[in-house]
Amino acid sequence: MSDPLPNLIEEVVSAPLTGESDSVANMMLEEDASDIALLLESLPVEQRLSVWSEVPKHKKIDVLVAMRGDPREVLIDATDNDEWLQLFTDMDAEVLLELADSLPDRLVESALSVMNKQQRKYFQDASLFSDNQIGHWLSHEVLVLPISAKVRDALRLIRRNVPDLTDCIFLVNRAGHFTEAVKLTRVFGAPEHLPLVEISEEYIDVVRVEDDSINASRLVQRSGFSALPAVDSNNTLLGRVDMVTASELVNENYERQVMSSAGMDEDEDLFAPVRKSAQSRAVWLGINLLTAFLASWFIGLFEATLQQVVALAVLMPVVASMGGIAGSQTLTLIVRGLALGQVTKGNRNALLQKELRVGGLNGIIWAIVIGIVASFWFTDPLLGVVIALAILCNIIAAALAGVSLPIILDKLKIDPALSGSVILTTVTDIVGFVAFLGLGTLFLL
Amino acid sequence: MSDPLPNLIEEVVSAPLTGESDSVANMMLEEDASDIALLLESLPVEQRLSVWSEVPKHKKIDVLVAMRGDPREVLIDATDNDEWLQLFTDMDAEVLLELADSLPDRLVESALSVMNKQQRKYFQDASLFSDNQIGHWLSHEVLVLPISAKVRDALRLIRRNVPDLTDCIFLVNRAGHFTEAVKLTRVFGAPEHLPLVEISEEYIDVVRVEDDSINASRLVQRSGFSALPAVDSNNTLLGRVDMVTASELVNENYERQVMSSAGMDEDEDLFAPVRKSAQSRAVWLGINLLTAFLASWFIGLFEATLQQVVALAVLMPVVASMGGIAGSQTLTLIVRGLALGQVTKGNRNALLQKELRVGGLNGIIWAIVIGIVASFWFTDPLLGVVIALAILCNIIAAALAGVSLPIILDKLKIDPALSGSVILTTVTDIVGFVAFLGLGTLFLL
Repeated sequence: MSDPLPNLIEEVVSAPLTGESDSVANMMLEEDASDIALLLESLPVEQRLSVWSEVPKHKKIDVLVAMRGDPREVLIDATDNDEWLQLFTDMDAEVLLELADSLPDRLVESALSVMNKQQRKYFQDASLFSDNQIGHWLSHEVLVLPISAKVRDALRLIRRNVPDLTDCIFLVNRAGHFTEAVKLTRVFGAPEHLPLVEISEEYIDVVRVEDDSINASRLVQRSGFSALPAVDSNNTLLGRVDMVTASELVNENYERQVMSSAGMDEDEDLFAPVRKSAQSRAVWLGINLLTAFLASWFIGLFEATLQQVVALAVLMPVVASMGGIAGSQTLTLIVRGLALGQVTKGNRNALLQKELRVGGLNGIIWAIVIGIVASFWFTDPLLGVVIALAILCNIIAAALAGVSLPIILDKLKIDPALSGSVILTTVTDIVGFVAFLGLGTLFLL
Repeated sequence: MSDPLPNLIEEVVSAPLTGESDSVANMMLEEDASDIALLLESLPVEQRLSVWSEVPKHKKIDVLVAMRGDPREVLIDATDNDEWLQLFTDMDAEVLLELADSLPDRLVESALSVMNKQQRKYFQDASLFSDNQIGHWLSHEVLVLPISAKVRDALRLIRRNVPDLTDCIFLVNRAGHFTEAVKLTRVFGAPEHLPLVEISEEYIDVVRVEDDSINASRLVQRSGFSALPAVDSNNTLLGRVDMVTASELVNENYERQVMSSAGMDEDEDLFAPVRKSAQSRAVWLGINLLTAFLASWFIGLFEATLQQVVALAVLMPVVASMGGIAGSQTLTLIVRGLALGQVTKGNRNALLQKELRVGGLNGIIWAIVIGIVASFWFTDPLLGVVIALAILCNIIAAALAGVSLPIILDKLKIDPALSGSVILTTVTDIVGFVAFLGLGTLFLL
């Protein structure tokens, strides 16, 4: 699919909208839902709707599930009530959980009303957890047997039906508590009367439903099993988390991190309607504007100095941007460490010390370089000294802010990947301008 | 493991180095290699080395494999030759491939010299591919049978040994070409004489060894299989890519993307030696300095204007930063689209149009807001008009650069996630300063 996608996009975009495309029709038959989802996301709205109408009915729900939130909503809005009622038949809880945020409440209600009782219960159970808890994302297609079961029982179970990505049978006691996992491959060839506990795995990690969904997913990814059992605080087996779900959650989280550094979210649509897109981005621009005005206000305190030494105005951006870059390096490292659980009370002082030393070293080096360049540029050695001191100051402040800001934000339950860099550059801008213009006022007037 | 990590870090950092820690000793016995790797990465160098000496011999190689490049090298440097020779026994190709970049050449040589012939061949085959091709990352523990094999043969094969994350037997023809995949769970319960082809999967994706490693890994992640077969251009089966490898490659790629936005790489060590860390970051600071001086040079062209209208100097950062933020939003969206294969020749004009419209709309709104604020602040309506026009100009330029820059960089095979934002802010700084100061010269002098 990596190759046909660009060709298909080109074909669809350049074709007259009314014409039928053989390759699109073929794709609808042959490719799986996630490939079709990728194509739909890549198309401008008009073409997206026209291709959507060609998606076979039985693939539509899977395609919606595979899409990101915003482009998906465009299609949901274009689907009429009668079609929904058809699509809702046989829907299972996991699918509805995935779509619920994009569907209007009344559609969620009508989907629930035609859902079978067991699935409705799963949906309601999952809704008790927030979407950053793994309990929200369990799958319920699990092979389960009582702890007393024998190989014979396992063979009978396996012959009926094995869900995808299942490599283990989970054994539970009478209370429904998870006790052991038995690999399917160990069952075959074992004597029929052997109790399963005798061939169970020595060790398997267990996911707790209230766990953070990303930590739990990472555990699944590195477990070496296709899926891990999920239990509540009583150890009751409630479902499982498989590799596909785990990968989706981890990938989505990384995308969120990348997008949020620009004040957007992972659901952002390449071809969002102009007004919607402008609106969602305006918030970030507005926040940034406040911080920019704040920085300007600090510059304004030194108007008299700027009027007399215009070189300061010329060099201001150098001081601010060196601090911003140095700070964002530290910030990025710490934010990753926090996400991996590697930055904690135990090592944060050691980290701060190390980053201050790195900042001090780089501060001295670049202070000298910039000081020399500025001295020659404006033939004023004193200006060179002033900018050198300001650079040193700002790079050290950047290290300090780069370590402490994300740790503080994290404590306040604010995502440091989202707001860290705005606050950081506000700090480095203000420190940079005040240090540079303040030292300039002292030494150059 | 998500909970014990912070406690362990605290305990190790605060304990006197000589004292033995029971919980660390316990962890070394109980936890798996990736948990120990996370702990080691979180420790300052001294403590890292002391904990490393407590890692049981048989886990050491797995721990090294699970670590990021830079912190791993600290441990590799501290391991002496005799210990290496012990660790190298029974090493397989995949492990050595993972470590090769961190090991000095002579150690790679000595590892190869004690490696068995088959594994050495795998290593050499893999080395023919660059590390962004999936052929570099194959695993060779594969269940394979001839296309004519029967259920009986499959059962015999399974009883011997099934590698982790194996859900299929791959069938090959006489030439060794991959032809079919048979799910293990379909084999059990099937009549012994049934040819396997009769219960093979209708469809399974195949990975080509020369494919991009990230695209191939994403294919594995969403395939619903635990592993996909990997073939060369003749369709010869060479190995497989399993879910664990795929997740590691995808996660590493996301980390690279996040870290490279600050000019670092995914191997960066939380506790790198100060000098090494300062050195690796200095490059990025240096590149940024050149762009900052370039922007300053443009400001310098308007020294006379700045001297007369000092308000321009005060407001300069507002114009530059609004452009920078607007541009980085567009850039981030396009970079993601490129990574997913969603931005191509077919839709880039439509994207440019949409982003220009979003930029135009936000440009007008914020131009008015900022124009009004500036007019009142400096009681100069003409200054308000000047800054409004400059903001509009810069936000539209940002949209243009945000779409076209990553597309151009991608064509030039330069990673847009790494260099995109530096070039972009250089553009928006310069456009912003020149527009603002130029218009100021025209209207305000």
